[in-house]
Amino acid sequence: MNTYQLQVVENTNKKEKPVKDQVPFGTTFTDHMYVLEYETEKGWYDPKIVPYGPISLDPAAMIFHYGQTVFEGMKAYHTEDGRVLLFRPEKNFERLNLSSERLSIPALDEKLALEHLTALIKLEKDWVPKTPGTSLYIRPYIISTDANLAVGPSQTYKYMVILSPVGSYFPGGLQPVVIHVEDKFTRAVKGGTGMAKTAGNYSSGYQAQANAKKEGNADVLWLDGVEKKYIEEVGSMNIFFKINGEVITPELNGSILKGITRMSIIELLDTWGIKVTEKRMSIDELYEAYDAGHVEEVFGTGTAAVISPVGELNWKGKKMIVNNHEIGELSQKIYDTITGIQTGKIEDTLGWTVEVK
Amino acid sequence: MNTYQLQVVENTNKKEKPVKDQVPFGTTFTDHMYVLEYETEKGWYDPKIVPYGPISLDPAAMIFHYGQTVFEGMKAYHTEDGRVLLFRPEKNFERLNLSSERLSIPALDEKLALEHLTALIKLEKDWVPKTPGTSLYIRPYIISTDANLAVGPSQTYKYMVILSPVGSYFPGGLQPVVIHVEDKFTRAVKGGTGMAKTAGNYSSGYQAQANAKKEGNADVLWLDGVEKKYIEEVGSMNIFFKINGEVITPELNGSILKGITRMSIIELLDTWGIKVTEKRMSIDELYEAYDAGHVEEVFGTGTAAVISPVGELNWKGKKMIVNNHEIGELSQKIYDTITGIQTGKIEDTLGWTVEVK
Ligand SMILES: Cc1ncc(COP(=O)(O)O)c(C=O)c1O
Ligand SMILES: Cc1ncc(COP(=O)(O)O)c(C=O)c1O
Repeated sequence: MNTYQLQVVENTNKKEKPVKDQVPFGTTFTDHMYVLEYETEKGWYDPKIVPYGPISLDPAAMIFHYGQTVFEGMKAYHTEDGRVLLFRPEKNFERLNLSSERLSIPALDEKLALEHLTALIKLEKDWVPKTPGTSLYIRPYIISTDANLAVGPSQTYKYMVILSPVGSYFPGGLQPVVIHVEDKFTRAVKGGTGMAKTAGNYSSGYQAQANAKKEGNADVLWLDGVEKKYIEEVGSMNIFFKINGEVITPELNGSILKGITRMSIIELLDTWGIKVTEKRMSIDELYEAYDAGHVEEVFGTGTAAVISPVGELNWKGKKMIVNNHEIGELSQKIYDTITGIQTGKIEDTLGWTVEVK
Repeated sequence: MNTYQLQVVENTNKKEKPVKDQVPFGTTFTDHMYVLEYETEKGWYDPKIVPYGPISLDPAAMIFHYGQTVFEGMKAYHTEDGRVLLFRPEKNFERLNLSSERLSIPALDEKLALEHLTALIKLEKDWVPKTPGTSLYIRPYIISTDANLAVGPSQTYKYMVILSPVGSYFPGGLQPVVIHVEDKFTRAVKGGTGMAKTAGNYSSGYQAQANAKKEGNADVLWLDGVEKKYIEEVGSMNIFFKINGEVITPELNGSILKGITRMSIIELLDTWGIKVTEKRMSIDELYEAYDAGHVEEVFGTGTAAVISPVGELNWKGKKMIVNNHEIGELSQKIYDTITGIQTGKIEDTLGWTVEVK
């Protein structure tokens, strides 16, 4: 048997779809999941679509002890004319392999991963919600499964994909958020795992996020781990600034994630004749521009919300109110264009969408 | 029912013990494991000793996605007169709670955790190997189990303990190792999770360790994440130097692990009238001392090996040969004393051991 022949075991006990398209993010899952196994001798083998359900692991499985794991996050969107679109999914698999390299995890065949993902989404087509702003969240991930407490790369892995219908991030339209600039805790540093989408990068931010929330902030903006001076990114978003007419975003320096929304915005703005400056920018520089009245827009970018306008930025007690807590013109235009392309309302001249058929 | 009443479900299908006491580290497990559950509303509840076996988790369980997890490592030793001793186990539970705090995991009741651990070891007494140098490795760990993809602390956790008989780290006596000083990759940084025993800290080192091994090194010595200048620690060991008669170890700065062997050596040397200097020490300083002929001994310290003499240290192509690749007098004396106390051969005047009875 071809070790790459996709097997499908259909779920005969299907769940009810959520009545409202506003289930809390990441808590409802579809009827099926995808599983692919890895062993050093065989490579990746035995791809399967099976009923969504618990997985059984040895208590010594490496994922529980040494965190050798990577993941991705993307979405499938329903168009008004009944098609289902993915947004640049090949970029997610490319990044998954980049993350895997950093974590010493064997690479996936990106083309095949996309093919099998498409097969899974096709089977779960009815789970892609239709209300504007909603989507089917897609979570591919790889876990290390050797039952072995010796610190070092696993010889066996499981690559899985689970799907979760999600409501609109901003049910009432774009809402500017309040962000705390973190100057104590560190998310990532040069030489670390910041540019990889790996589990440990997320839980390491919980304390900072909890502290920030206590003071009324929605999330934290991370500064670099070396000098606590240069702007990196927000929780699960890259960040952009419009300062005195110039659009700026922190450069990819190895410690921030190479966001696919970030990349798409840079490319989109290029087609609009707007050059995005990718550079190292200090938080002082930002506050100086603010004091001079030059900070026009600030927005986070990521798969979850596409654009999340920042209305307020708190750094060491200094409050920066951006655009009077209102959504900026450019932020809104980018949001409308990208969500328009994602949902088929705007023609996809950039070739970003992949139809599931 | 008292939610803290320990239940024991005995394994009726016991495994063969390994014939040789030289099984590879971390691959053989005993007949039973300990499990304790947590829910926000209930706190920790339902402690159980059950047959060792697979655990079943939702594929969306947070441990697979965001790395909210902590662990410990300690050992039980057989004495010649048939007793089983633990070495400062209360320090491990103290550190587990410290790690948990950093990862936003609820604290365990340290006293009860030790009580239940003792009950588990008692049941598995026959699994504690008897050959000199062998021991029963103990792995307590906590994993986050909410089936929820929203980034943030879990509301449910599992605390578990598994046990693994391990052979001698140095079957032929102490063997000096070759260590590579890592100047590209980073393990930890100020404000990060370096002082916590959490999964992500380990897999993030695999690439550096693999590169080092290719060049004949056993492990890497990490430098600080900010300046790549100050000495931190080795893979799973703290590090000590004897330079011109002075014993030095890097100070606890938030990015290195507070090793229990490290702590014990500082206390032991104090009883010998030797003061250990805990300070920030740069790698240049070390090499300067070496060039001046002052580096007398270098050794790693940790539960796995107690003392692991370093015979060679490679930094940017500069080779430091320590004590002619031989074990130093102080290293050997510390090793003999601590392993002597652990195995009951030397009187435990410091009150470090806890008998399992
Ligand atoms: C740390 C981090 N930064 C940035 C992003 C944004 O990336 P993308 O635009 O690919 O969703 C994400 C989310 O995926 C993230 O987790
Ligand atoms: C990163 C790290 N440093 C140091 C140590 C040594 O600590 P201990 O002496 O408590 O075993 C360990 C092992 O536990 C470790 O994982």
